[in-house]
Amino acid sequence: MLNCPAPLDRAFQALADPARRVMVERLARGPASVSELARPLDMTLSAVVQHLAVLEASGLVRSQKLGRVRTCHIEPRVLQGAERWIVERRASWERRLDLLGEFLAATEDQPKRRRKT
Amino acid sequence: MLNCPAPLDRAFQALADPARRVMVERLARGPASVSELARPLDMTLSAVVQHLAVLEASGLVRSQKLGRVRTCHIEPRVLQGAERWIVERRASWERRLDLLGEFLAATEDQPKRRRKT
Repeated sequence: MLNCPAPLDRAFQALADPARRVMVERLARGPASVSELARPLDMTLSAVVQHLAVLEASGLVRSQKLGRVRTCHIEPRVLQGAERWIVERRASWERRLDLLGEFLAATEDQPKRRRKT
Repeated sequence: MLNCPAPLDRAFQALADPARRVMVERLARGPASVSELARPLDMTLSAVVQHLAVLEASGLVRSQKLGRVRTCHIEPRVLQGAERWIVERRASWERRLDLLGEFLAATEDQPKRRRKT
């Protein structure tokens, strides 16, 4: 039905939570530790780690542990895939509006031409 | 924590399903009846109606019944909101890359200057 839908499923699913979007917003400004990601969120560190796991499973975020600190960073490719899907839908919708506009303009002209002849 | 997160939650949640994305893809090309939406999908009409309900609840799609036919059309505003959120994250991430590039270029120059003096 669709070519490889799973990455988009997981990306949109991951973005469907406000806490996870706050984490992605933070990481878009640069890498951060789990504690830094948790700072603006009104939830336990354990809940933040669970949200991080969803983000990592979607491929939107990667993390690595150096010593005792886990540092997270954004993986732009998956976000770009989600953006591309939406942009393609918009392009399709705008193309239809253009065609509709042309059709309306053409049918508006027709009666005038008929009246002239 | 976030300004009015619910519409984005619902939009991304609605887009997290491949069948619903097929329906949005179809509607981006123009209005369609429920049967037309169901045609490329390997599922019952009842399942399609349930997916349509999720899309309508998210505001991505509107439908109206004229006689016996329910016609669905896309509501671009919600899709634009989702696109804007992703584009803003990309802008933030690209701005950071630019700053990082400038920083690296500046620190690369420094030792050379030191060697010259």
